[in-house]
Amino acid sequence: MKAKVTVTLKHGVLDPQGKAIGHALQTLGFDGVGEVRQGKLIELELEETDPAKAKAAVEAMCQRLLSNTVIENYAIELV
Amino acid sequence: MKAKVTVTLKHGVLDPQGKAIGHALQTLGFDGVGEVRQGKLIELELEETDPAKAKAAVEAMCQRLLSNTVIENYAIELV
Repeated sequence: MKAKVTVTLKHGVLDPQGKAIGHALQTLGFDGVGEVRQGKLIELELEETDPAKAKAAVEAMCQRLLSNTVIENYAIELV
Repeated sequence: MKAKVTVTLKHGVLDPQGKAIGHALQTLGFDGVGEVRQGKLIELELEETDPAKAKAAVEAMCQRLLSNTVIENYAIELV
């Protein structure tokens, strides 16, 4: 079973990386681009085959390692 | 209109960041985790309202800035 975890900065948290991308796009001539935010995508290969248990395990991983819950949100998708 | 771009390393390209995450998870006691790959997620706010034009614009951004097409794949999702 595969899990996709997306980690994004919470609303209101400054995102200098996203801002830099936005500026670079403008410099390249791409107009009409508003806010840009950058996040992380983590793909995990899991041995667990039960979706509920897999989700619980990935949830624990997000809490302990994959995200900083003070400033980041995470979303889990099982594939 | 919003666009979500996910940039992932191509199959076969070494991913030391993903490897490090995998090791850290193992150290924390999470067993049954196989390969871990890390990618990027870029969220763009676009003024364009026509989905076809928006997709074409984001495609061009991916080719020129957001991804390194030699070693990375990208996927575009309009929201």
